[in-house]
Amino acid sequence: MRLTPDAKGVFPIAPTPFHPDGRIDEASIDRMTDFYGEIGATGLTVLGIMGEAPKLDGAEAVAVASRVIRRTKLPVVIGVSAPGFAAMGSLTRAVMDAGAAAVMIAPPPSLRTDDQIVGYYAQAAEVIGPDVPFVIQDYPLTLSVVMTPGVIRRIVTDNANCVMLKHEDWPGLEKISALRAFQRDGSLRPISILCGNGGLFLDFECERGADGANTGYAFPEMLVDVVRLSAAGERERAHDVFDAHLPLLRYEQQPGLGLAVRKYVMMRRGILASDAQRKPGAGLSATARAEVDFLLERLGRHDPRARV
Amino acid sequence: MRLTPDAKGVFPIAPTPFHPDGRIDEASIDRMTDFYGEIGATGLTVLGIMGEAPKLDGAEAVAVASRVIRRTKLPVVIGVSAPGFAAMGSLTRAVMDAGAAAVMIAPPPSLRTDDQIVGYYAQAAEVIGPDVPFVIQDYPLTLSVVMTPGVIRRIVTDNANCVMLKHEDWPGLEKISALRAFQRDGSLRPISILCGNGGLFLDFECERGADGANTGYAFPEMLVDVVRLSAAGERERAHDVFDAHLPLLRYEQQPGLGLAVRKYVMMRRGILASDAQRKPGAGLSATARAEVDFLLERLGRHDPRARV
Amino acid sequence: MRLTPDAKGVFPIAPTPFHPDGRIDEASIDRMTDFYGEIGATGLTVLGIMGEAPKLDGAEAVAVASRVIRRTKLPVVIGVSAPGFAAMGSLTRAVMDAGAAAVMIAPPPSLRTDDQIVGYYAQAAEVIGPDVPFVIQDYPLTLSVVMTPGVIRRIVTDNANCVMLKHEDWPGLEKISALRAFQRDGSLRPISILCGNGGLFLDFECERGADGANTGYAFPEMLVDVVRLSAAGERERAHDVFDAHLPLLRYEQQPGLGLAVRKYVMMRRGILASDAQRKPGAGLSATARAEVDFLLERLGRHDPRARV
Amino acid sequence: MRLTPDAKGVFPIAPTPFHPDGRIDEASIDRMTDFYGEIGATGLTVLGIMGEAPKLDGAEAVAVASRVIRRTKLPVVIGVSAPGFAAMGSLTRAVMDAGAAAVMIAPPPSLRTDDQIVGYYAQAAEVIGPDVPFVIQDYPLTLSVVMTPGVIRRIVTDNANCVMLKHEDWPGLEKISALRAFQRDGSLRPISILCGNGGLFLDFECERGADGANTGYAFPEMLVDVVRLSAAGERERAHDVFDAHLPLLRYEQQPGLGLAVRKYVMMRRGILASDAQRKPGAGLSATARAEVDFLLERLGRHDPRARV
Repeated sequence: MRLTPDAKGVFPIAPTPFHPDGRIDEASIDRMTDFYGEIGATGLTVLGIMGEAPKLDGAEAVAVASRVIRRTKLPVVIGVSAPGFAAMGSLTRAVMDAGAAAVMIAPPPSLRTDDQIVGYYAQAAEVIGPDVPFVIQDYPLTLSVVMTPGVIRRIVTDNANCVMLKHEDWPGLEKISALRAFQRDGSLRPISILCGNGGLFLDFECERGADGANTGYAFPEMLVDVVRLSAAGERERAHDVFDAHLPLLRYEQQPGLGLAVRKYVMMRRGILASDAQRKPGAGLSATARAEVDFLLERLGRHDPRARV
Repeated sequence: MRLTPDAKGVFPIAPTPFHPDGRIDEASIDRMTDFYGEIGATGLTVLGIMGEAPKLDGAEAVAVASRVIRRTKLPVVIGVSAPGFAAMGSLTRAVMDAGAAAVMIAPPPSLRTDDQIVGYYAQAAEVIGPDVPFVIQDYPLTLSVVMTPGVIRRIVTDNANCVMLKHEDWPGLEKISALRAFQRDGSLRPISILCGNGGLFLDFECERGADGANTGYAFPEMLVDVVRLSAAGERERAHDVFDAHLPLLRYEQQPGLGLAVRKYVMMRRGILASDAQRKPGAGLSATARAEVDFLLERLGRHDPRARV
Repeated sequence: MRLTPDAKGVFPIAPTPFHPDGRIDEASIDRMTDFYGEIGATGLTVLGIMGEAPKLDGAEAVAVASRVIRRTKLPVVIGVSAPGFAAMGSLTRAVMDAGAAAVMIAPPPSLRTDDQIVGYYAQAAEVIGPDVPFVIQDYPLTLSVVMTPGVIRRIVTDNANCVMLKHEDWPGLEKISALRAFQRDGSLRPISILCGNGGLFLDFECERGADGANTGYAFPEMLVDVVRLSAAGERERAHDVFDAHLPLLRYEQQPGLGLAVRKYVMMRRGILASDAQRKPGAGLSATARAEVDFLLERLGRHDPRARV
Repeated sequence: MRLTPDAKGVFPIAPTPFHPDGRIDEASIDRMTDFYGEIGATGLTVLGIMGEAPKLDGAEAVAVASRVIRRTKLPVVIGVSAPGFAAMGSLTRAVMDAGAAAVMIAPPPSLRTDDQIVGYYAQAAEVIGPDVPFVIQDYPLTLSVVMTPGVIRRIVTDNANCVMLKHEDWPGLEKISALRAFQRDGSLRPISILCGNGGLFLDFECERGADGANTGYAFPEMLVDVVRLSAAGERERAHDVFDAHLPLLRYEQQPGLGLAVRKYVMMRRGILASDAQRKPGAGLSATARAEVDFLLERLGRHDPRARV
């Protein structure tokens, strides 16, 4: 099952569960994978930036990806961003053999000009091969590479195996509108747009034409709700659900600290056995944990799923 | 009236009002200045990054600052960040002569090491002179200069005229805690900490020990409420007020686009005659304006002040 | 006399002479201006990055530019790069009124995409007005903005008053070849290309099609020689002259330190009364001065002009 | 044989030889390794930035390192910089088992504050283990991490297994003087300083107290000569040798292009069978090759080793 340009819904960015001593926690991988399936996710992304991918060595990365793929019937996208094409190619071959649906590729931070970005994706597409679908990760805040709508159009047009955009530019609403306008005027073929950036603008992203979410908020049920309600035209209800979660979501979206919040909440929800990150990883102070607890308690008044 | 380390409350970051043709709108300056006084601001900051300071020439900058200073009884802080010390010195002398309470200084983006940052502030402090109080602007997202708590302590210790930190690191809650811990252990003298970053974490910043807000959200009344309620120990009420505004506040905090949102809302509130920015300035699309209108309408259900 | 696209030869980047106490040294400005005229410069650039432009306030900048313009019959280009268009416009009007031949505009470091760069120059060209010729400064090492040959072509094509490229990309030889190829294939109108970057590749830049040099090496006579010999087809002699100077030129080209070396050598040559820079400015250690003296002594064996 | 703080001489940065089709060229590895031994190198560094390390997958990296180690009696340093500690640890264990003398670690580009840099090296030192000597790579131009002399002193002091600094700051002469002054005042224990940055300042770096060179210039014989002559107090002769090579060395030191020049010259010298780089790699244009040929011909008049 390969990923296609009509993918929609919610593809959670799965964290990688670790034991406190740094070993990979396989039982939590299974439990988390099952959880995502049960709450209505339509796919999964593994080994993304929030999946602590660079902290795994090559064999571990393949093992984690394979375990998730075997466990779920959902299409699984694997992050294969790497400092060089040899490692990207090796990992891609291994995970596609294991049954992955696609790979996700972020641009290296050194890229500056439009041509450099387009050229990089052309080379990457050659390395992974024409049969492997890929997802563009557009995340300037962390990657410091800025892609205009026109550059994205060039990448999609040049590479038939580009099927999805993980959109997490910030601000990014006008970019979604621009890409959808390209499609309407016939200058861009159909492509799935799923939004990241912690979900901070998911309410409006759906209204602008996004197909859903591709991010890791610790209550992905909310993401599923917002995408569904928005698609059903229930605008006020979509915003109501979103707004109730926004105080916590905003807290989780802090750069560098967000993963610690996410894992802590997923631990409190019983999905992960531990909130451990591999080194180097910023843990939560006691005060920060108490703040998250307070936000959960307040959220629980609006959303019973948060009563953990 | 010079700024002192016991400043607290809300110092709004004032935008600079323009007519649609780019001229400075003096009537709107007066109306805005009066408005800030009426809603309980305890000070004002003019010519900050969101004040479009680099778009004014030297004479205009002095004129805008002087007009605000004459109009209000509140202490006024003037942003004097400049690519060189000659311009910083000239502007400082002019605005202090006009009655400013202090100046605010951001580090130039080229600074990297701890010693470079500390050295820059030592030179800047010499340029403005020992009688002029100054505010450190700590805003890594935009300025790409990262100051540890230890570096801030060195700057405060080295320069007796450093009286305030405009804190807008992100994430930044632990930094407030660290600085307040320095004060408790006697290694840092008292300093005012007012928080920026659009107010996105003001609810918890107050709880961590901040003295208030120094940001420009278009409903500064909410900032005043949160600071007051938090100081009074009314934690739940402070969060209730904050959470009601968070969907709009989050929309306004988009980098590059935020000022357009802020000016648009202030225009709809009747504070500014126009939401014009000087070139280059990102305007709002029709869709974005409709989104802001929608957020205002939803906010108005919780906060009657938003029924504009 | 306005600058035109057929400018060639050597336009030295003039430093701004200061007294040790930071005041502008007008006698040295005059002596330096005369010197440049005598050694065969074909133009002058004032208030460039190496002219310590940001350390001057607005009135000083106009005064320095005007003094040079009055003193020389050569065309004078004035650097007007500024954090905002208001200051750029004011300075441009003042120096053009004073008789400048053109202005030079560097892109602000925040620009990333091709469209952002092209858009910036369109706005700047509008601010200075269609009658003012301008020079693009393409200097990625310091400005962190990367312009492809295609982007430069778009800027030149969009703005009839763009007459020169100050080329200091690194590496940059292929860029000169690419731009000249654009001209041969008819896709780019004629434009002057003068090279900066301390002159480190001037020997080959001339052979690739550059029209000359636009940099500040303390022995601009060498730049004049290399441009002249290269234009005359005296390849080996051009390289001989260049190579003799390369050890010192390389020493002068150190980022952050180069201006101190340049001013020190110009002081030893009797052109400047002092090698002082305004704060903040990196001075030379005693060891560094001795190293420069040693290089001068060695250079003097090949080039009698270096026997100072 | 583990690397110790009294290492001196020339440790060439070895390129990784490839066949034109991208396969590793093992015969050239052997020939190159022998060559370095014959011309007086005192050690070797493999898998550095100029060794195209990120283009190798994990198994290839170990294979290349092991082949060099087996082939030579010189101490071999292996670059193990990686985006995460898991890969760094795996590669370190493998190459130390294979007989490496030490590993070299560059800081990731995201580090900003002094404490972040010091903390990173503490974690890296823990990952590789106390028995593995390591080399700090200090290369701000490419890595955008700026280390003060004080930060280097903290890293050396905190980690007993730090034995060498690969110094390639630019400008960097004062940094060598500062570190040696720390040793004289007793605040820093002995450490080897070998200089990189293409050798562009090796003439003075030796005089400032460096122990030698750690760079990849295609005529490492010159590096050996300069280090030897400088150590012997033959200052003028050291500079004569250096100056003769400077036009070519400067050409080879172009960022992004330098490796292509280096491999081309090593191919012309018969050391490498091909100048191929793995993708993505900037090749030389015909014009650039002709320029290198011209420089070689001119160099051959002074140094018979360049008559290739």
